[in-house]
Amino acid sequence: MKTDKILLGHGSGGQLSNELINKVFIKHFSNKTLDILSDACILKINQSHIAFTSDSFVVDPIFFLGGNIGKLAICGTVNDIAVSGAKPLYLSTAFIIEEGFSISKLEEIVKTMAEEAKKAGIKIVTGDTKVVNKGKCDKIFINTTGIGSILEKRKHIGSGKNIKPGDKIIINGSIGDHGIAVMSARNDLKISSPVISDCACLHKLIEKSFEISENIKFMRDATRGGLASILAEIVENKQFGIEIEEENVPVKETVRGMCELLGFDPFYVANEGKFVMIVEANDAEAIVNMLRTQEFGSEAAIIGEVVDKHHGKTVINTSIGGQRILDMLSAEQLPRIC
Amino acid sequence: MKTDKILLGHGSGGQLSNELINKVFIKHFSNKTLDILSDACILKINQSHIAFTSDSFVVDPIFFLGGNIGKLAICGTVNDIAVSGAKPLYLSTAFIIEEGFSISKLEEIVKTMAEEAKKAGIKIVTGDTKVVNKGKCDKIFINTTGIGSILEKRKHIGSGKNIKPGDKIIINGSIGDHGIAVMSARNDLKISSPVISDCACLHKLIEKSFEISENIKFMRDATRGGLASILAEIVENKQFGIEIEEENVPVKETVRGMCELLGFDPFYVANEGKFVMIVEANDAEAIVNMLRTQEFGSEAAIIGEVVDKHHGKTVINTSIGGQRILDMLSAEQLPRIC
Repeated sequence: MKTDKILLGHGSGGQLSNELINKVFIKHFSNKTLDILSDACILKINQSHIAFTSDSFVVDPIFFLGGNIGKLAICGTVNDIAVSGAKPLYLSTAFIIEEGFSISKLEEIVKTMAEEAKKAGIKIVTGDTKVVNKGKCDKIFINTTGIGSILEKRKHIGSGKNIKPGDKIIINGSIGDHGIAVMSARNDLKISSPVISDCACLHKLIEKSFEISENIKFMRDATRGGLASILAEIVENKQFGIEIEEENVPVKETVRGMCELLGFDPFYVANEGKFVMIVEANDAEAIVNMLRTQEFGSEAAIIGEVVDKHHGKTVINTSIGGQRILDMLSAEQLPRIC
Repeated sequence: MKTDKILLGHGSGGQLSNELINKVFIKHFSNKTLDILSDACILKINQSHIAFTSDSFVVDPIFFLGGNIGKLAICGTVNDIAVSGAKPLYLSTAFIIEEGFSISKLEEIVKTMAEEAKKAGIKIVTGDTKVVNKGKCDKIFINTTGIGSILEKRKHIGSGKNIKPGDKIIINGSIGDHGIAVMSARNDLKISSPVISDCACLHKLIEKSFEISENIKFMRDATRGGLASILAEIVENKQFGIEIEEENVPVKETVRGMCELLGFDPFYVANEGKFVMIVEANDAEAIVNMLRTQEFGSEAAIIGEVVDKHHGKTVINTSIGGQRILDMLSAEQLPRIC
């Protein structure tokens, strides 16, 4: 690494994160299960397969349009389990709280978590609370770690082992909403049509997708690093490429406007209620049609396909007729977005 | 609650922690599994019983005699699984790192974690890394969440459901070492015989105890809040009491000296390599004799027993012939001890 200092970009979910994971964490922790580096790992305990995943949430500010750090902490981990192909069952919640933080705000966050967990049908079964001196953390950080049960036939969904050229790429709605909502809350930007975070639990959409098709090859929620970073990760070192049709990727006008104003590319802005799904071509339309009837899928679309060219690269066919390569996020665009 | 502000004591593992857990977390999250409030909860997935536990580590300083935050993060969670009667299998690790933190120090911590996990036979299978801006956290916080497998017959060990008057109380060695080691590192106290943290994974001691006895009724590692808080928790609202013989409780001379100097009671000082075990009287001596042959059990002792008097209270028979009641830690003695 070029520096001995941790940079904000090391937590971006992009290229620097990748480097840190490989050069520090994998270097020492390496094992067959960890090295797959999917959002949730798949474990076999006795005769049962379970999905297991952990995320810490440090979003700033802790309240934003469409959610708060607590909702994020539930949905984020529920989604990591669900995109691995598993059914979310249990969550742990661990709080690190700054001395002096308001107990009523804490309770508001906890209440949201309870409501969201109830809606998702997931139980919070264990937890931990630490308090650090004033100034030693920023209000509140929450870790949620989750367990789900997964059918053996679905155990490769998280790793994308079965992706093949010809497969279609689906997204369940518009990109960039969460990042822009948090950014707006942070800067207290007065915007006429405010952007609301898309933060939501997606396991029901996914359950319904499995009812339609057992040919779902891969899913991942497009959080830190945005849609672009997920697509870049999928093709990394692979003998296939991805082509995305820009005009098919839903972006809300307000989000597009804010991105232009702030100099962001919506493809790199974080989402908290969007999954990328790769599915056998024949089943893609039926899934999208179903998704469009659902609360968190009304703008679902086929946005591209896996191709047997430009191996290892994601190419976007732009609306104006050009092509550009979507790399992984290289630095940090929006720190503490989740 | 008397105040709307989070106090350091809310993270102490004592009375204020208890209050926060009940009045905020249990109030909203309540369910049969969570409400048991043991260190690890027991889940049934398909036909398998598993133990599940989460802890965040915010120790200050992050390096101390006998360990660092990484060793603590592995041992703490391994121990929480092991004292529930389960075999530790898998861990997640989630890092929150301050911008500007040294990557080589991070690697040193990660290396210790890898070594400790390897020794413990537990696999690190998933993880997460967040980076927050300089000044928004204190160097590094680590969450570890663990899964173990547990035999059905042992599933009540964490809750202590089977404790009965007459049962003996065992500890595997001297108390207060960890708290005093961290305190010394924090203040850079120059002491002639320094205290070394007892931070260690205890699952092997526990495995060996089960080889001797299936009559282990309860175990808990005596971390935050020290031995006293664990004992107070065990008897809380119960139809039995506990009597402890002070002279049988091992305390190192250096720890006793430091406690006198700093005005601490070693019963309330945190340990990171000590468990309290409650076992049927007949099996107690055999277990202690075995423990004394082991690396982390050489000073093991029977320190008291469960009694059918002073219900709900832990009474200590002092070395000078008096009696005092051991309450739960009421405020915060040593913040950020783990």
